[in-house]
Amino acid sequence: MRSQLMEMLEARKEEMIEIRRHLHEYPEISFEEEKTAQYIADFYKGKDVEIETNVGNGYGIIVTITGGKSGKKIGLRADFDALPIQEEADVPFKSKNEGVMHACGHDAHTAYLMVLADCLIQLKDDLNGTVKIIHQHAEEVPPGGAKSIVESGKLDDLDAIFGIHVLPMDEAGVVGYHSGYSFNGRSYFKLKVQGQGGHGSSPHKANDSIVAGAHFVTSVQTIVSRRLNPMDVGVITIGSFDGKGTFNVIKDSVEIEGDIRYMSKESREVIEKELKRIAEGIGVQFGVECILDYEPDYPPLYNDPEYTDFVVQTLKEANDKDIKEIKEYPALSPSEDFAYYLEKIPGCYFFIGCTPKGVKEPYFNHHPKFNIDEDSILVAAKAVGHVVCGYFEKNQ
Amino acid sequence: MRSQLMEMLEARKEEMIEIRRHLHEYPEISFEEEKTAQYIADFYKGKDVEIETNVGNGYGIIVTITGGKSGKKIGLRADFDALPIQEEADVPFKSKNEGVMHACGHDAHTAYLMVLADCLIQLKDDLNGTVKIIHQHAEEVPPGGAKSIVESGKLDDLDAIFGIHVLPMDEAGVVGYHSGYSFNGRSYFKLKVQGQGGHGSSPHKANDSIVAGAHFVTSVQTIVSRRLNPMDVGVITIGSFDGKGTFNVIKDSVEIEGDIRYMSKESREVIEKELKRIAEGIGVQFGVECILDYEPDYPPLYNDPEYTDFVVQTLKEANDKDIKEIKEYPALSPSEDFAYYLEKIPGCYFFIGCTPKGVKEPYFNHHPKFNIDEDSILVAAKAVGHVVCGYFEKNQ
Amino acid sequence: MRSQLMEMLEARKEEMIEIRRHLHEYPEISFEEEKTAQYIADFYKGKDVEIETNVGNGYGIIVTITGGKSGKKIGLRADFDALPIQEEADVPFKSKNEGVMHACGHDAHTAYLMVLADCLIQLKDDLNGTVKIIHQHAEEVPPGGAKSIVESGKLDDLDAIFGIHVLPMDEAGVVGYHSGYSFNGRSYFKLKVQGQGGHGSSPHKANDSIVAGAHFVTSVQTIVSRRLNPMDVGVITIGSFDGKGTFNVIKDSVEIEGDIRYMSKESREVIEKELKRIAEGIGVQFGVECILDYEPDYPPLYNDPEYTDFVVQTLKEANDKDIKEIKEYPALSPSEDFAYYLEKIPGCYFFIGCTPKGVKEPYFNHHPKFNIDEDSILVAAKAVGHVVCGYFEKNQ
Amino acid sequence: MRSQLMEMLEARKEEMIEIRRHLHEYPEISFEEEKTAQYIADFYKGKDVEIETNVGNGYGIIVTITGGKSGKKIGLRADFDALPIQEEADVPFKSKNEGVMHACGHDAHTAYLMVLADCLIQLKDDLNGTVKIIHQHAEEVPPGGAKSIVESGKLDDLDAIFGIHVLPMDEAGVVGYHSGYSFNGRSYFKLKVQGQGGHGSSPHKANDSIVAGAHFVTSVQTIVSRRLNPMDVGVITIGSFDGKGTFNVIKDSVEIEGDIRYMSKESREVIEKELKRIAEGIGVQFGVECILDYEPDYPPLYNDPEYTDFVVQTLKEANDKDIKEIKEYPALSPSEDFAYYLEKIPGCYFFIGCTPKGVKEPYFNHHPKFNIDEDSILVAAKAVGHVVCGYFEKNQ
Repeated sequence: MRSQLMEMLEARKEEMIEIRRHLHEYPEISFEEEKTAQYIADFYKGKDVEIETNVGNGYGIIVTITGGKSGKKIGLRADFDALPIQEEADVPFKSKNEGVMHACGHDAHTAYLMVLADCLIQLKDDLNGTVKIIHQHAEEVPPGGAKSIVESGKLDDLDAIFGIHVLPMDEAGVVGYHSGYSFNGRSYFKLKVQGQGGHGSSPHKANDSIVAGAHFVTSVQTIVSRRLNPMDVGVITIGSFDGKGTFNVIKDSVEIEGDIRYMSKESREVIEKELKRIAEGIGVQFGVECILDYEPDYPPLYNDPEYTDFVVQTLKEANDKDIKEIKEYPALSPSEDFAYYLEKIPGCYFFIGCTPKGVKEPYFNHHPKFNIDEDSILVAAKAVGHVVCGYFEKNQ
Repeated sequence: MRSQLMEMLEARKEEMIEIRRHLHEYPEISFEEEKTAQYIADFYKGKDVEIETNVGNGYGIIVTITGGKSGKKIGLRADFDALPIQEEADVPFKSKNEGVMHACGHDAHTAYLMVLADCLIQLKDDLNGTVKIIHQHAEEVPPGGAKSIVESGKLDDLDAIFGIHVLPMDEAGVVGYHSGYSFNGRSYFKLKVQGQGGHGSSPHKANDSIVAGAHFVTSVQTIVSRRLNPMDVGVITIGSFDGKGTFNVIKDSVEIEGDIRYMSKESREVIEKELKRIAEGIGVQFGVECILDYEPDYPPLYNDPEYTDFVVQTLKEANDKDIKEIKEYPALSPSEDFAYYLEKIPGCYFFIGCTPKGVKEPYFNHHPKFNIDEDSILVAAKAVGHVVCGYFEKNQ
Repeated sequence: MRSQLMEMLEARKEEMIEIRRHLHEYPEISFEEEKTAQYIADFYKGKDVEIETNVGNGYGIIVTITGGKSGKKIGLRADFDALPIQEEADVPFKSKNEGVMHACGHDAHTAYLMVLADCLIQLKDDLNGTVKIIHQHAEEVPPGGAKSIVESGKLDDLDAIFGIHVLPMDEAGVVGYHSGYSFNGRSYFKLKVQGQGGHGSSPHKANDSIVAGAHFVTSVQTIVSRRLNPMDVGVITIGSFDGKGTFNVIKDSVEIEGDIRYMSKESREVIEKELKRIAEGIGVQFGVECILDYEPDYPPLYNDPEYTDFVVQTLKEANDKDIKEIKEYPALSPSEDFAYYLEKIPGCYFFIGCTPKGVKEPYFNHHPKFNIDEDSILVAAKAVGHVVCGYFEKNQ
Repeated sequence: MRSQLMEMLEARKEEMIEIRRHLHEYPEISFEEEKTAQYIADFYKGKDVEIETNVGNGYGIIVTITGGKSGKKIGLRADFDALPIQEEADVPFKSKNEGVMHACGHDAHTAYLMVLADCLIQLKDDLNGTVKIIHQHAEEVPPGGAKSIVESGKLDDLDAIFGIHVLPMDEAGVVGYHSGYSFNGRSYFKLKVQGQGGHGSSPHKANDSIVAGAHFVTSVQTIVSRRLNPMDVGVITIGSFDGKGTFNVIKDSVEIEGDIRYMSKESREVIEKELKRIAEGIGVQFGVECILDYEPDYPPLYNDPEYTDFVVQTLKEANDKDIKEIKEYPALSPSEDFAYYLEKIPGCYFFIGCTPKGVKEPYFNHHPKFNIDEDSILVAAKAVGHVVCGYFEKNQ
């Protein structure tokens, strides 16, 4: 079945590109991908699969391909939302939606997965198991779509899950991977320090919120410097200290906002616990009211080492002419809501090189001039195709 | 001469009140007291005195009364500017200038001094010395009028200077005094902390100005707690920490503004030196640029103990029926530019009780409902009159 | 009676000096003044007075002189303990007790009061009231003797209390006074910050007590800078931060000790409350255990303005040839347990100039070379004598 | 040649164990390994090699084996110093030197390398290159032996260098590796903060070194939290804050000592630069003298990824019955002076499992009960033997 699948994918390379270009021309921002979802759902209409739409907290779609023989169940996910960015890339299929752009490559993700899914549908009698195709909405904006899809329970029966991201760190043909924690998790917080205003010459009749806030800022540094495992990754950035006032009036309250990053569950927990502790302690210490709004966001993404190894070995043994190199990548700073799937289901999220041919310093994801080598779409389809085949071969 | 002067003052009590009410109806804010100054200058027209107008950086007036016999030279000062406050006091002579009000009693100061000056002019043949009447503009707004009048050199020949402020801490008839440092001095500062912006997840590529600013705030506390003489008075209030930004973007710069108070020259100097040192140190420590704008404002007001004693003894010995009590007052938090005169010329600035009759909790100076017992105007005139007479008696 | 008393005192000047020299030769440190107390008690033996010994927590003595007529009751106090200092003054009556010295002038206090008391005993038929002579032990070392004497209840019936201290700020003949808060109060604290030790390379497995302790130190600065009335006096000195350890081992605990000064009850209360709050807040913030031992010590000494005025007027009107000047002094940094009497009983504690003749820069109290002009002893006796007489004259 | 070498090594397994046990019985601490060095030198006596003794700053030995054919030159290093630990392991060959113990496995390192060297000497006609055997002294105590051996220039001609450490993270038969930065580097610092002492009640006359020191501690936290790349590793532990003093005396100076760890050259440089900057800034800010003694110690150990890959591939392909598994290890917290070799010469330092058979929770290196499975010695010899053969095969 594997060689048949690869031939089919190669034959439909142009179709993948056309789908990608169509999506690229009509991008929709997170949670508003109504037409994109319709376009995808239409594609599957009439095919011998179960289609579920409006899954989770948005336009999520799950397409279930039930194989001819029973066996393991795996999920494949591609995200389909775009970004509120005005495209500046000089391409014939430039975004027709003002101020919206597929600047992160989700168009390519969706394109390869639609065609791969269709091929698998055609070959499904040979499949010894089930494949769930997850077309996910809203990856770019917290709380994201993944969390709600996981919570829908519709993936509870999966044995494994895989996904990819196009990344211009290498040319098309290179597949990147990282075992273990691979993307940062993140949280957001806002602290209101409520003291008491008063005249600048009479501090004893007031309670200075700026001084209490400054001590909060200096204390928070100790979480990263003294509370986290130095081998882990952790960042707490206080991006806003809103304490503008009048020079000779004691400020009654300040608002402090921050961004938190971590590369493990342990660090995630330590930071949340310690930040709350410090806010409470500052309240006690200065007799101010500290109102902390703490919002945990995407968790760190953890690639199961066993499944990552499996992906790497499978692709190496595939010996596919389109997959030229399998390369270890470092862990990455950004966050990705695929992490939610991997919290529940073992699997691997890996990378597909997409640097446009001849370009030495490509524009990165989220840049208004971001662009990809469209050959990478076929590479994605084949790489994931090999993983699917390999998985079912191993689990006959 | 003294009894004659007192009789004349008593006889002109109503005139003082009329002048005060006229000024009250037509208040003008600091540095814009054109008509007030004209009104005062007109009063002296045709009298046998030297009149200088537009003295200093505004509408200041100096009227020189040269006595029949030569001798010491003393200055008497009254300020004549009003405040940008909408009057709410229910009086028949309410302010006719929208949003401007004599809410600090400078109308009363000017009224008593004009009449007292006129009486002294009439008695000048008996005077063994010179009296300079200083009608000062712009006391309320830094840099004030006093500094520039002092710098004009026109008071360089004075041997002593006196002034009063009406204060509703007691009823009319009570005279208050404080020896030594009596009003706080003050300064203003603004610090710009210029770091480097960047993405919240990559602090090493940026330079966080909020963290540097917070350390500035905590360090500044040590000036008051560890650098000032504990027996002195010192306050540093940081009233504004302008660091509003985006939660996940490292803030490139923050602006910090503050108000400084002190009750002695020594503390004034220590605070300025240490604040500059800390700003410089924070710059070195965090590799940020610290741009400090430091503006020393009114100095602390120092009543020469000898001259204060002289005032107290003179008033006690005067045994004047209108001056019922001489009372020690504590030092006061606000600032007053009479301090500039006292930096150069020994003298005393004292207080005239003005609480309206029957009022237990009077509105204080600068309140929209501030009002005075107009009997206090005669008390002011007589008290200062006694001081003038006493001074020339002593220095025959 | 007053003139008679003054004559008697003048006549016994040499006796006062002899007593002082005897005490000076045989000084005893606080709480160990057995022989000194015996010497004093012996002096009163056989006289027509009530003698109570071992009053309070040491060798305190109260001698009650009941006047011929009933009336008000006043207390006069002199302290009699010495200091653990090796005398270096070159005097013929140098201390014979190794390492102990009357370096604070308590010998003079005791000498004048014994003779004054004896004179009053002789004149007691003319007394319209009662005088309690308080020979107090242990002024130098907290908790001091005064507190326990007050707590004994034996002074509950007093209407007023007076005391003096010799001070080489002026020559003999000068009497100094300060109205209101006059001596600093003080407290002591020790904070143990208990974290958890660990290897320097693994901060997350430990809890760094040095970092928590450092934050305590920086936070404490805000009490003086932001919580106290700037017109008040307050000092918090952290004199000890005991955190010596091994460079690469995380320190499990540190001990911090400090000294606190204040010039009012309000500041005393604010500091205690805020220090406890900060210790608790640091505990919450850093997850360490903060064990605070806070020991309030001598309160600030408050001279009742009315009684101070009375002392000043009485001495001025006395027109005594030996009392040449009555001078206002500033408030003083040290602490004095006379403050405990004044918490319960109104009165005044004032100063007797004692600079040795011809000396421009005298050694101050507590210096190994401290010495006094012995003429000051008579001045003390007469000044207090005038106060006693004046008080009973006023309260016939 | 490779199979011959392996047979020889297998045949001499008992000899390796005997050598290890001899060394174990007679351990010598760093820089005092006179007899150990003599024992090793004696072993090579009479063999056809060049022997250099007393290399570097101690008893270092370099044995140069020149192959029959010219070619690449590689170094193999084993350290031979012991630790000042009293052995508590229950073994028949327990340390006979009181308070000294081979608790880190250097006895095993030396044993395998002596026998491997001897075998290579016997086979040297077949060698197409040169092998330098480095028996290194003083690895445990900074500045260590490696730095001086590198600086001797005697290794300047090497093309590659390899070394191993026994580690009870796995059983004998497991070989561990980590590519890139693998051991932390470290530095030491001592800061003297020199202020000015004084009485606790007069902070303005002193300059409080404890307050300045506390601000140093809080500021230092920002290096790890804000200046380092969050993907890097960095620790700054302040293990000692020596500020013990008297509670009411302002402390004139404090001494602060700390330990620094980092996993890259970049972090090493950033920390040194920022720490110096903060010390200087604290000096400026508080007007104290900051005397910083900064001592960079072992650098982070960097395994060249290419050479690490080569080791891994070589061992996998060797298919050796004694090498059962090749396993990736995480980077390690401790420091190791093999790092100095790798700063100059590419190579790889890897790990030999040595957990005693049947033990689940083995005692780790530096524990008084540390012990190894002696089978690991042969594994070490064969692993390094394969690397040597593989290297010369590749570079014919």
